[in-house]
Amino acid sequence: MIILGVDPGLAIAGWGIIQYERTRFRVLGYGSATTKAGMKLEDRLLSLHRDFCDIIEHYHPDAFAAEELFWNTNQKTGIAVAEARGVIVMTARKYGLELNEYTPLQIKQSVTGYGRATKQQIITMVTSLLCLPEPPKPDDTADALAAAICHANTSGSPLSRFYNN
Amino acid sequence: MIILGVDPGLAIAGWGIIQYERTRFRVLGYGSATTKAGMKLEDRLLSLHRDFCDIIEHYHPDAFAAEELFWNTNQKTGIAVAEARGVIVMTARKYGLELNEYTPLQIKQSVTGYGRATKQQIITMVTSLLCLPEPPKPDDTADALAAAICHANTSGSPLSRFYNN
Repeated sequence: MIILGVDPGLAIAGWGIIQYERTRFRVLGYGSATTKAGMKLEDRLLSLHRDFCDIIEHYHPDAFAAEELFWNTNQKTGIAVAEARGVIVMTARKYGLELNEYTPLQIKQSVTGYGRATKQQIITMVTSLLCLPEPPKPDDTADALAAAICHANTSGSPLSRFYNN
Repeated sequence: MIILGVDPGLAIAGWGIIQYERTRFRVLGYGSATTKAGMKLEDRLLSLHRDFCDIIEHYHPDAFAAEELFWNTNQKTGIAVAEARGVIVMTARKYGLELNEYTPLQIKQSVTGYGRATKQQIITMVTSLLCLPEPPKPDDTADALAAAICHANTSGSPLSRFYNN
């Protein structure tokens, strides 16, 4: 199973692709789709759409996972993140991918075994689980890979039907 | 000039198309793109994308206007509206349309001459200005037409450069 994990954002949208076979992970690629603050909203959203079209056409993922969105304390940022997320979720669906949403707690629990893990602990565990030579940069990329790992663990475990329903 | 006005939403996204020539309005079409609450988020977003592709391909608008999004008191709804808006704004851009955003105050002021107009006053003025035989339904459609009228008034007036910059 090839899983696309995404950490949505308008300025930086992290993405990671992992292959998961018989409880083993292999990273196929990761990075971030970025748009400059000076660009118009509509151009930023179209740029994200095109970047995710390219990523999906390149890696042909079978599954798509992203963190559930919660209300942000920064209203302006929250709206922008949600707008970007809408575009990414729609783009994935255009290629037949359903959205698998996980809460931050589920992702932390799945990746580190501890639901209140820090950002640094997530990065360390993602680096270790995926045998990466160094921590993935930017941090959004680690979050995206963490969402993919969470989906692999969740959908591959006997508990998956509880998580996914 | 043919203007597409939109009132974004996930369950109901109102749209209206007006033609504006020499200070005269003509309605070319209006309606709403709707998605059912029981559908998955990704299917709803893809459905909106396809509906707006159809609308734009049918009417070939030259301009696109929508209300600026503000933080909603209902968090869940606010995120969903922003996700839907992102998809609609991106879709319009795919067809070359830039986003012209107006605040609720600007739209009310432009359509009724009064920035604190009620929803009913907006509906009445939209119906009157566009010579519609009856108030457009649902209300989201009237809001979409109001955004289009606001853009016509704003971009056609000597003040347009102040509004749009």
